Amino acid sequence: MTRYVAVIGGSEATPVEMTIAETLGRLIADEGWILVCGGLGGVMEAAARGCGEREGTTIGILPGDDRRHANPHVSFSIPTGMGEARNALVARAADIVIAVGGEFGTLSEIAFALKMGKPVIGIGTWSLGVEDRPDPIIRAETPEDAITWIQDRA
Amino acid sequence: MTRYVAVIGGSEATPVEMTIAETLGRLIADEGWILVCGGLGGVMEAAARGCGEREGTTIGILPGDDRRHANPHVSFSIPTGMGEARNALVARAADIVIAVGGEFGTLSEIAFALKMGKPVIGIGTWSLGVEDRPDPIIRAETPEDAITWIQDRA
Amino acid sequence: MTRYVAVIGGSEATPVEMTIAETLGRLIADEGWILVCGGLGGVMEAAARGCGEREGTTIGILPGDDRRHANPHVSFSIPTGMGEARNALVARAADIVIAVGGEFGTLSEIAFALKMGKPVIGIGTWSLGVEDRPDPIIRAETPEDAITWIQDRA
Amino acid sequence: MTRYVAVIGGSEATPVEMTIAETLGRLIADEGWILVCGGLGGVMEAAARGCGEREGTTIGILPGDDRRHANPHVSFSIPTGMGEARNALVARAADIVIAVGGEFGTLSEIAFALKMGKPVIGIGTWSLGVEDRPDPIIRAETPEDAITWIQDRA
Repeated sequence: MTRYVAVIGGSEATPVEMTIAETLGRLIADEGWILVCGGLGGVMEAAARGCGEREGTTIGILPGDDRRHANPHVSFSIPTGMGEARNALVARAADIVIAVGGEFGTLSEIAFALKMGKPVIGIGTWSLGVEDRPDPIIRAETPEDAITWIQDRA
Repeated sequence: MTRYVAVIGGSEATPVEMTIAETLGRLIADEGWILVCGGLGGVMEAAARGCGEREGTTIGILPGDDRRHANPHVSFSIPTGMGEARNALVARAADIVIAVGGEFGTLSEIAFALKMGKPVIGIGTWSLGVEDRPDPIIRAETPEDAITWIQDRA
Repeated sequence: MTRYVAVIGGSEATPVEMTIAETLGRLIADEGWILVCGGLGGVMEAAARGCGEREGTTIGILPGDDRRHANPHVSFSIPTGMGEARNALVARAADIVIAVGGEFGTLSEIAFALKMGKPVIGIGTWSLGVEDRPDPIIRAETPEDAITWIQDRA
Repeated sequence: MTRYVAVIGGSEATPVEMTIAETLGRLIADEGWILVCGGLGGVMEAAARGCGEREGTTIGILPGDDRRHANPHVSFSIPTGMGEARNALVARAADIVIAVGGEFGTLSEIAFALKMGKPVIGIGTWSLGVEDRPDPIIRAETPEDAITWIQDRA
């Protein structure tokens, strides 16, 4: 079954985060997986651009009600009109989530994915602690590490 | 800009409705438009099957949280976990809606699309009246009529 | 168990619709039922005002994200930030729905309530037809008729 | 304007968490604030019970579609049928959020509230870190501390 992998991160992102996201998009396309993202700028756009460079497919799930607000690299846009609650949909639509960077919206998507029992891989993202339980986010140093983790789990 | 056309209708459908839906799916694919549907059986599956026969793309927006419940003809599945409220998402994701048959879920999608200002074309579906205003649904006798209406509107 | 009764209708309404909605609000409060509405103006505000005149409780489920947009007669405001999709929530939160007038948003709430198997009583609202099935909306001529129908069903 | 304070936490909770939640419910009622919660068991039920002991009002926003699943201490139940996505609604309906304990669902509500710019007070809940930014959660040792923080902010 085809894998749906979400790359999540802020609509404003650092150059390092943009490079990581774009590389993730390329690698996801190379694997033949579907990229899911929030469809806007920053990390979402960089990942979609990378995916498009390798002729992969990106599904952008937008908070607003107008598909013209999707970044130009999204293959298919899904406007939701649900505002922030669309973050639950991004997590729901993915089988695996890769988080890049540390915005609050990203945190909500991480939380939903964890709640839904889906693996969350983090690159330079939130650390989560409660009591003495281990952080539930799988850490990756590089995009390649993240992809390898997913491949090994097949 | 690529058009997203939803074909909406019940998960249980008559043979005539199934044939209409499948033909709509074929014609939508032939136009190069994207088919949006609710991803399950009946009208949704028939439309997706028709679209797939012509190598078109179908996006299925599911009420449940498991993409394995999508019918096998959907190209990309979007599980939402939102139950009936996903009907708002089907209407939101489409630029134009074609309704086949007369279930209550279909009626909710028609209502949302009308509320959002999107054209709704009906084939054998609900009649809507209030006071002496005209029915807001555009009537088509055949799938071909529906497609022609959309083409003419380009 | 306490009944939750939704009064649904447009944010712009005729004087007759406003009077009907206000009377419904009063009668609902007199029965000790909870009034559910969309929290904004027009029919929603008139019903809430009537309910408040009799010290009843109104829950307003808002499309936006700011509770200050609720009309001043709502007892408890629930901002949702979900736009039109909040119409599904209004129908979901009610046990019985009374529709006044004929906007598309009202139609979506009618459709959702019918889909959820809830009784829908209409006063001057949409007529719904498909093939030769009877209209699924229960007709009332007056607010009192609507309330009597609910009482008899207890 | 009346304050809406959410108490969020797991449906399974430790005795210490239950005591904290029940005390929070009592104190919120004593202040004349409205308690918002997820309407189910554990922390949600304990907070509602405490609120009810002092004749306060609790609004329970449920993930399912049946209000009979609300705990018996909820004053008003709002079934949503939206599954986990209702967590966004709990955060949206509150002006301030108090988190008790450390489940993933709680984390999603924390994240949404932070994203929406609302204060989040934590008692024995998640620590959130990213790079060298300070944890965005306001820490309280006791229920009384949490209430005092809110009072001082008026």
